[in-house]
Amino acid sequence: MFYLIGLGLVDPMDISVKALEIVKRCSRVYLETYTSILGCHKEELEVFYGRPLLLADRDLVEEKSDEILTGASEEEVALLVVGDPFGATTHIDLALRARDKKIPYKVIHNASIITAVGCCGLQLYKFGEIVAVPFWDETWKPESFYEKIKFNRLHNMHTLCLLDIKVVEPTAESPIRRRRQIMRFMTVADAAQQLLAIVDRKNALEHNTVLNDLSMCVGLARVGSETQRIVAKTLHDMASTDLGGPLHCLIIPSKELHPLEIEYLQGYATFKLDSYNY
Amino acid sequence: MFYLIGLGLVDPMDISVKALEIVKRCSRVYLETYTSILGCHKEELEVFYGRPLLLADRDLVEEKSDEILTGASEEEVALLVVGDPFGATTHIDLALRARDKKIPYKVIHNASIITAVGCCGLQLYKFGEIVAVPFWDETWKPESFYEKIKFNRLHNMHTLCLLDIKVVEPTAESPIRRRRQIMRFMTVADAAQQLLAIVDRKNALEHNTVLNDLSMCVGLARVGSETQRIVAKTLHDMASTDLGGPLHCLIIPSKELHPLEIEYLQGYATFKLDSYNY
Repeated sequence: MFYLIGLGLVDPMDISVKALEIVKRCSRVYLETYTSILGCHKEELEVFYGRPLLLADRDLVEEKSDEILTGASEEEVALLVVGDPFGATTHIDLALRARDKKIPYKVIHNASIITAVGCCGLQLYKFGEIVAVPFWDETWKPESFYEKIKFNRLHNMHTLCLLDIKVVEPTAESPIRRRRQIMRFMTVADAAQQLLAIVDRKNALEHNTVLNDLSMCVGLARVGSETQRIVAKTLHDMASTDLGGPLHCLIIPSKELHPLEIEYLQGYATFKLDSYNY
Repeated sequence: MFYLIGLGLVDPMDISVKALEIVKRCSRVYLETYTSILGCHKEELEVFYGRPLLLADRDLVEEKSDEILTGASEEEVALLVVGDPFGATTHIDLALRARDKKIPYKVIHNASIITAVGCCGLQLYKFGEIVAVPFWDETWKPESFYEKIKFNRLHNMHTLCLLDIKVVEPTAESPIRRRRQIMRFMTVADAAQQLLAIVDRKNALEHNTVLNDLSMCVGLARVGSETQRIVAKTLHDMASTDLGGPLHCLIIPSKELHPLEIEYLQGYATFKLDSYNY
């Protein structure tokens, strides 16, 4: 049996009781380490589970999946994934490869940032399509995420922006990188800056009131942890906001909010929301 | 401290290790019983947790929340909720009331049907707004959910339809109802029949190809359980499909599917998907 197991969002104890039993008895357990990260290190998970974990980087999951699935018809093998396993396409693909090989597989679900963001008070059934905001570099500055945010705003839906992470794989050469992963993550400030750059350029060309630097947005950091932070600010102010360590995400709310959403979100806001034109 | 604790989707073992520790040490633990249900009874949860649970019906959660929050400043009190706690507006409202009373509170996240439906292979970032399909009666036949499905289809997004449940509260008079809840839940067949009734009437008035009786839809039952079922069929065929016990949900996919979505969903389909006009 091959198990795709969701770990939830923060620490070793976010695993479900059911999943923990499976992890303890599997022959091999892989930890997927490149689509997202938990708020703790592999070593902490190993201590908590009382067993070793094998790191599964992009190359192993996407190119060498046969290695992960080897023997899974006879013995139990698990891949641990941050959040809920089918949040990332790559895990659907892995399940498909198990099916093609006639290897039985099961998914053990867990909390995902997609629903956990409900903790800011914005109603989950009012979210439109999720967008992924990638890191820009000197030459590559994709803007497609802006069009989706604009579309959602025009149709009175919230947009959850999942922010890019860059994972540096451990190497045998570097003592530091052998111990743990070095990672770059996009902060809410990074995301707000990129969004502002697009908004400023678009609004110079065509006057639009869909989104501008005074639009309200919600920044969330380390959702579900003891150090969770939520702030509601203008996009302009979010661009200089430091919410601390990873992971962050950003929500661009719809222009119209339900009174309960306003009341709840007010607890995180830097200005009075009920008299504000979002 | 007041805890809002997600139980996940199926059985007692879907609780997280973190949440189980909290449940064991709380002074009072309420089980919310009207926005959704687990695949097991209160008694099974009590045995697994090794402690009694108090039933929290709609009246208690929405009208008498003071009773739930009593003493939560000094001791630990928890409300257990199926899925992820902030999926339902009523739990946001309860957190707000805790905040107003200056009672510290925490949310313990868990799996939600909103992301667990990824198990059918449709990509989560392509879902538009979620719709709730209510039971119709003789005089009340709301159709607003159809407009949202149509909108999502027109904009190439999947629609997750969450299906109504009716909970009958336990009463002191009836021995059966005192033991457990009697519930009516909407099946994928019920939902497909209601949707077909709307589609047939709309399509008679205005020819539209957005949705018709041959459109493909995906029915899911008991997601995350050992008896989970997933089927992809025409809307017409779904209207006579029996997927067994609760809970069910229905997905109306977008008209365009990604090759990986087609490949994965094919495993649950009654016809060849790649040559089909959805």
